[in-house]
Amino acid sequence: MTAAKGVFITLEGGDGTGKSTQIRLLAAALAAAGIDAVTTREPGGTPQAERIRNLLLQRDSGNFDPLTEAMLMFSARREHLVNKIWPSMEAGQWVISDRFADSTRAFQGYGMGLDAALIEKLYTLVAGDFQPDLTLIFDIEPEAGLARSMKHMSQTANVTESTEDRYERMGLAFHTRLREGFLSIAKQNPQRCVVVDAAADIQSVHRHVLDIVTRRFGLALQEAMHG
Amino acid sequence: MTAAKGVFITLEGGDGTGKSTQIRLLAAALAAAGIDAVTTREPGGTPQAERIRNLLLQRDSGNFDPLTEAMLMFSARREHLVNKIWPSMEAGQWVISDRFADSTRAFQGYGMGLDAALIEKLYTLVAGDFQPDLTLIFDIEPEAGLARSMKHMSQTANVTESTEDRYERMGLAFHTRLREGFLSIAKQNPQRCVVVDAAADIQSVHRHVLDIVTRRFGLALQEAMHG
Repeated sequence: MTAAKGVFITLEGGDGTGKSTQIRLLAAALAAAGIDAVTTREPGGTPQAERIRNLLLQRDSGNFDPLTEAMLMFSARREHLVNKIWPSMEAGQWVISDRFADSTRAFQGYGMGLDAALIEKLYTLVAGDFQPDLTLIFDIEPEAGLARSMKHMSQTANVTESTEDRYERMGLAFHTRLREGFLSIAKQNPQRCVVVDAAADIQSVHRHVLDIVTRRFGLALQEAMHG
Repeated sequence: MTAAKGVFITLEGGDGTGKSTQIRLLAAALAAAGIDAVTTREPGGTPQAERIRNLLLQRDSGNFDPLTEAMLMFSARREHLVNKIWPSMEAGQWVISDRFADSTRAFQGYGMGLDAALIEKLYTLVAGDFQPDLTLIFDIEPEAGLARSMKHMSQTANVTESTEDRYERMGLAFHTRLREGFLSIAKQNPQRCVVVDAAADIQSVHRHVLDIVTRRFGLALQEAMHG
């Protein structure tokens, strides 16, 4: 759908897998190597897409129909692609996104039971045959991920009702389906996806990520330090 | 997609064609004949769909990509179908909606140039093979419609930036394409659509609407009085 000069890397996985920390470290390592990298997130990433995100997070009028929720996710994704991901890549930048379409496949598909073919129809509609160059699937035991995520929430002031809170309340069975979903996606897309053991300490996970990126794109990257 | 016992009637057409007045009169005539009719509107019609409507109307972050806009319209439509139109019809009610999918076909398709096949894909995704039982296309010269619509706006206190304002500012060329779009839709769907001359006075248009509904559904309806 677009002729890309840059590189698109997505980080996927359940809550509490440390994706946002790892994105910061990867971006720092890329910057140190002189690579112009943009970090972003989904749902969101542009002003209009963030407004769709807010709509998805505010649950005061009840939940959306699962198909509506997927369509809103892909609406936000379309804005993100057209107004941030594609233009940045056209300008030769690397784009690193905290979540992308695999999250919809895992959450709405594997987690909530929405038909996979339907999700792929929406994907093709908004993105054509565009795909991330590399997807890192952050994997952790659901119990450990939930515990980390709860700890993170309790440290955050003014926690409001959010999609993530809602997913957290959906319990262990949901998170187990979610994890199996992400691992299935990785197995189905071996060229694009690499599973990262997110249970290791931050610096070890960072070294693993750098190792994957270095080999995939033929770069020499120096480790960035956390904290 | 749903086994319907009720009847679904949609009113379509440009701004200033008097649809909302005619919906009130039709609903009054149906009520007088003992028919339980629900009136509704798009985008909107349920709390969640109205929130998507608000997102579409607030333009402070700039315009959406045309495909995003169509997807948001169909997201709202999905909520409307699942939570209002289909349950009401299941309960045997008549549902009369101010705008439905033909508005997306006309505005985003004919008006803004979005691919018609793509709009139909979204339609099938959210509605399957469900269709209105009857669509009344309110037709008026764009100049007359715009003049009526402007008059209506100037009578409304605290007019804020809205989708309709935005469409109105798009000028006569856009509204001419819009009218041609609605007339093409009517021509392509002769079983479903009837064109109503909206330039006539309110009571005459109402009589025409009753005549169409009476013949289509084999009812005896008494004229309701405006004002």
